Amino acid sequence: MRATQDGRSAVRVPLLDHGYIELIETWGSDQRIIESARMSTGKGFLGWGLLAVYICRRCNKEIPKEEVYEAEGGGSGHTGCWSIVDVNSKPGDEKLLRYLWENQHATPFEFGGMVVEVKAPIMVFREWHRHRSQGFNEASARYAPLPDENYVPAVERCMAGGGHLTKQATAASGAQALTEPDALAWLAELADVYEHAERVYQSGLRRGVPKELARLPVPVGRYSKMRATTNLRMWLAFATLRTTAKNPAAQWEIRQYADAVGELLAEHFPRTYAVFAEGRK
Amino acid sequence: MRATQDGRSAVRVPLLDHGYIELIETWGSDQRIIESARMSTGKGFLGWGLLAVYICRRCNKEIPKEEVYEAEGGGSGHTGCWSIVDVNSKPGDEKLLRYLWENQHATPFEFGGMVVEVKAPIMVFREWHRHRSQGFNEASARYAPLPDENYVPAVERCMAGGGHLTKQATAASGAQALTEPDALAWLAELADVYEHAERVYQSGLRRGVPKELARLPVPVGRYSKMRATTNLRMWLAFATLRTTAKNPAAQWEIRQYADAVGELLAEHFPRTYAVFAEGRK
Amino acid sequence: MRATQDGRSAVRVPLLDHGYIELIETWGSDQRIIESARMSTGKGFLGWGLLAVYICRRCNKEIPKEEVYEAEGGGSGHTGCWSIVDVNSKPGDEKLLRYLWENQHATPFEFGGMVVEVKAPIMVFREWHRHRSQGFNEASARYAPLPDENYVPAVERCMAGGGHLTKQATAASGAQALTEPDALAWLAELADVYEHAERVYQSGLRRGVPKELARLPVPVGRYSKMRATTNLRMWLAFATLRTTAKNPAAQWEIRQYADAVGELLAEHFPRTYAVFAEGRK
Amino acid sequence: MRATQDGRSAVRVPLLDHGYIELIETWGSDQRIIESARMSTGKGFLGWGLLAVYICRRCNKEIPKEEVYEAEGGGSGHTGCWSIVDVNSKPGDEKLLRYLWENQHATPFEFGGMVVEVKAPIMVFREWHRHRSQGFNEASARYAPLPDENYVPAVERCMAGGGHLTKQATAASGAQALTEPDALAWLAELADVYEHAERVYQSGLRRGVPKELARLPVPVGRYSKMRATTNLRMWLAFATLRTTAKNPAAQWEIRQYADAVGELLAEHFPRTYAVFAEGRK
Repeated sequence: MRATQDGRSAVRVPLLDHGYIELIETWGSDQRIIESARMSTGKGFLGWGLLAVYICRRCNKEIPKEEVYEAEGGGSGHTGCWSIVDVNSKPGDEKLLRYLWENQHATPFEFGGMVVEVKAPIMVFREWHRHRSQGFNEASARYAPLPDENYVPAVERCMAGGGHLTKQATAASGAQALTEPDALAWLAELADVYEHAERVYQSGLRRGVPKELARLPVPVGRYSKMRATTNLRMWLAFATLRTTAKNPAAQWEIRQYADAVGELLAEHFPRTYAVFAEGRK
Repeated sequence: MRATQDGRSAVRVPLLDHGYIELIETWGSDQRIIESARMSTGKGFLGWGLLAVYICRRCNKEIPKEEVYEAEGGGSGHTGCWSIVDVNSKPGDEKLLRYLWENQHATPFEFGGMVVEVKAPIMVFREWHRHRSQGFNEASARYAPLPDENYVPAVERCMAGGGHLTKQATAASGAQALTEPDALAWLAELADVYEHAERVYQSGLRRGVPKELARLPVPVGRYSKMRATTNLRMWLAFATLRTTAKNPAAQWEIRQYADAVGELLAEHFPRTYAVFAEGRK
Repeated sequence: MRATQDGRSAVRVPLLDHGYIELIETWGSDQRIIESARMSTGKGFLGWGLLAVYICRRCNKEIPKEEVYEAEGGGSGHTGCWSIVDVNSKPGDEKLLRYLWENQHATPFEFGGMVVEVKAPIMVFREWHRHRSQGFNEASARYAPLPDENYVPAVERCMAGGGHLTKQATAASGAQALTEPDALAWLAELADVYEHAERVYQSGLRRGVPKELARLPVPVGRYSKMRATTNLRMWLAFATLRTTAKNPAAQWEIRQYADAVGELLAEHFPRTYAVFAEGRK
Repeated sequence: MRATQDGRSAVRVPLLDHGYIELIETWGSDQRIIESARMSTGKGFLGWGLLAVYICRRCNKEIPKEEVYEAEGGGSGHTGCWSIVDVNSKPGDEKLLRYLWENQHATPFEFGGMVVEVKAPIMVFREWHRHRSQGFNEASARYAPLPDENYVPAVERCMAGGGHLTKQATAASGAQALTEPDALAWLAELADVYEHAERVYQSGLRRGVPKELARLPVPVGRYSKMRATTNLRMWLAFATLRTTAKNPAAQWEIRQYADAVGELLAEHFPRTYAVFAEGRK
């Protein structure tokens, strides 16, 4: 994970030209998901990886681990029978995790979650806020003026259309084919508008126009900040619609953030994210 | 209700300089709310206004209307007793509606709802979309360029701070006191930014910049359109936080839309809206 | 659809031995879904089935229908060019409906919905209430005693395990193989418990035990009633998890209700339900 | 908090005759709520209790703490001015917490939450599951037979009607006044039904009736288990409708659980719970 350390001892992943995503907190774990799912049968979490199974040669049944003992002379037996016990193995709770995901048993995935802080252009937040299961608290220009930071895409980004040429990512119908000089010229024009908008924003604030109106010229390329929270089930729904791996048709800018969300999920819920990444059958 | 008729035989309420709200559809009714609430007792809807009550003078009990008959000689009686029946009255189901609202029995209010179409500045939509129980479908500049319509507030609006001078509605700290000439001057500056932003937006589109990037200079004062849907319970939550009557601290612009929403609710769910308007004890 | 008419001019679909589902109301339509989805491009609803396309032989471009006219001598032309126009056809908005569903553009499906009244065993309601997007109002034994109606499954239902022998639908481990005489014997025992529970319920009510406690002996096989409401998106989620066609592993009893829900949806949103039934790629 | 320690090193609060509530996990904190709310202004968390304020005697302005220094000779000054600084105090972020709660700024309270495990009668779960913002995973008799544990209320509970004599908590209309001998007699009858229901449940399981049907005789007084999770905002909504302090009209049984939930919230979010307990103006 690309990461920088700042004074708050938290990790910020820089994104675009001025943005970032920062992990504030996670709760739950892969194990908690299993525990919750197992409420249905009362069995609880059994373990990850291969689990040992003890089988009595005479009874031909599985023996609880607690009843197995090392017999004198190098063998093993179990209480109640004293016969020899074979050790075998069966798959651990990764198997249940995969079953839950593939069969849309979704509630156990509500038993984990994550809070992040995000700095991104308003344009990105406009898409992000469509994910209504998330709780948001965002900077408000009604309360405090937004700093003069604006998103200027790289020339390559303009030229490549975000890598995935959906209809939306391409030019308007009847447009010219974008050349690099034209892209550079337009980026200079964009910087001009940004500068002009900021000048009029400040002029309004200085003259005494209410802050909530003075913001009218602010462009959707302006950066804002927010915290976002939801449970793991809903972060996976976000990742389904916004990560490059799952939906390359999403806009390139929000995919940068969603991919970073995915890396955080993979770090804190590694088994769940692996199952999610593989996908349903 | 201020309203204009357009070709679609629907009613649009004009708002701000270019915006509107239009009723697309409602479902349910005040009566449906009562019916749903009465599932708990199985009694169903009884009626509005004063309800007749029939009481036997001898039994001193309430008699079902079906058993009451006009007696010969001008009196009335009831089957099973043949004694005289007095007619009295009791309050109708407005009483239950009030009780439900005051005691936070909220689910019956999910049995009605409304769909509207809204044209408003992006700035207003940014606040509106915080109401996460609503379903939204909005115009997208990724798909089709947004028309060049932008919100220019009236001078009076700038001067009056939206009528309710919360901290947010007032000027930034250290600002001058806004004068009318300054307000006019700033509105002219605002118009300039709008014009400049549109020029660069069009330049981007023409040169072949992807539509989804060409929109970066678009200001939050630009108009967009959407449809919004939710149930009555959640429209009332919206009205609680955004109408002038319930929350004058909300921004003046969104209050214009919320007040229009309130008028539509009052028209289609008159008894519920009356109870809501009076408020909880 | 199996249906009976009752006094309320509404249609009830009888289910199990004493249950039913009754349509109270729908809102929206297949067309509304398209209209909402088209907010993104501003184009609106175009039509179902094959749509006529007019192409000028000279311009080689699509001509708006309004500009096409019948030319003298039997041909056709269009204003601005006067050249001959060919009529072709393209698929209507079923195509967009399918695209929306397949690509998980889910919000347009929030622009329709349905309210139903349901009578079912408590056991079925316990599963149904897991669908948390729905609004419920149910009969409450705190308010009024529940009538003595209880679910007695048919012998065939007991024997067949609901047709789909998942682990859950089968017998407990170590159980005997169910024989028809045993099934009949057990159903008689079940009827005994029902009778005994009702006797003690009534005894508690008569003696003055608070209604909310007197209900403790009521079995989960007892019938209750409710109204349920949600939007089409969420009814389809319900149908995904509970109809026989989509999830035969759901319990047979709730599948009877979900299949009836599906028939109602198919009647009122036929194009949407057809796309849903075909499924995602 | 009444609490017992069990093998899992977790704390269980015993409730009713066989039930409990156990804290599994919390996330967030009072401070996190403030941090999230302050996204709007960018100021962050300032502190609890009285906060020191430094004011320069000459400038008459507030000085950032970092610029204040101890002057030689016992006084203090600040960089940039070298004039004497007075220390004063202002209320800490409890004030903002109260403001948020009183003015229904609800989203910051979504930045904390809690997971609990609950064992309670099905009757209690039927009410609990109406709180649809919570995620639930419950024991399922489709998967594993429910143990034979049933709720038998104390005589005092039967007699006292749960302390708060709402209509629902009282006897059915026309019932006798409950006497202690009658209460005792009925509790014995209840125990009989419980025993009978269990016998037929086991008979069904043994004979090979599908587990999902064999459960039909199970009474709503039977205990079940679940895990429940949601954010602090929604736990407070639960507490509003179900704790004794906020809603004594809720059924006595669920109030025991809600009061225990309240104690857990008070322990882990003490400042928030204090503000909640005081209530809105």
